[in-house]
Amino acid sequence: MEIERKWLIDAFPEGLTPCEEKVTYSWYVSTTPVVRLRHSRGRYILTFKGEGHLSREEIESEIPENFAKEIIRFVGKEPIVKTMKVYDLEGGLKLECSAVDDTFMYAEVEFDSEDEANAFAAPSYLGKEVTYDPQMKMNNYWKQKNGIK
Amino acid sequence: MEIERKWLIDAFPEGLTPCEEKVTYSWYVSTTPVVRLRHSRGRYILTFKGEGHLSREEIESEIPENFAKEIIRFVGKEPIVKTMKVYDLEGGLKLECSAVDDTFMYAEVEFDSEDEANAFAAPSYLGKEVTYDPQMKMNNYWKQKNGIK
Repeated sequence: MEIERKWLIDAFPEGLTPCEEKVTYSWYVSTTPVVRLRHSRGRYILTFKGEGHLSREEIESEIPENFAKEIIRFVGKEPIVKTMKVYDLEGGLKLECSAVDDTFMYAEVEFDSEDEANAFAAPSYLGKEVTYDPQMKMNNYWKQKNGIK
Repeated sequence: MEIERKWLIDAFPEGLTPCEEKVTYSWYVSTTPVVRLRHSRGRYILTFKGEGHLSREEIESEIPENFAKEIIRFVGKEPIVKTMKVYDLEGGLKLECSAVDDTFMYAEVEFDSEDEANAFAAPSYLGKEVTYDPQMKMNNYWKQKNGIK
């Protein structure tokens, strides 16, 4: 189970030093349920995500490059390109900020429980919370981007 | 690309000796496009299938058992159980006959080209051809079986 909250942001947080930076390329084989292939740093990860907002079932596995390349050809669409920067927060939490296709930015924090998620006080540099906004799910952005109904 | 024709049958062909017999268990993660996990003889195969009738794009790869078991739990539904018997036909073709969940039976022959497929003269023990019948696609049977709209 993946438990996370999501906020819009205008920029990467100033004055914080990322503990990790990467660019990811994502292709959606299916959007209901989500079947996503993500390529980053030479690895290919296949992910299945269930329904939900704050909590969603999520399973994933690395797959071999040759199978991944067949999937990319099968999807036949340009990937979503994300620049991600990850920051350490207090209490062992990680803040993951993403710039999506140079189109918009959002931030996510993942939690161990819904209680912990609901108790989290969002720092002031986080904008509007969109945890429960279906339009802000990346599978819906994929559909918009590719004109899929 | 997978090129195959499909027919209904009432029984496994009499007087023919199968060159292969197996039981397969299939779970559909997604039906549009088809994302299918199949378990048979200790192996787990993940398959992606495109649209189409006579010809369909199809890619597949074996995946590790632990990831497969997570996918089965993710799908959360009973598999389609097929008893399959494969027979050698003339010209190197294979006839694959399947009994599905003790509900119905069908036969398939796979070809190297659409020309070869169209030129094939179906043996008399094959019933109605359903190559172009969407209701006879296994992803639609999966939806019917599980009450998915």
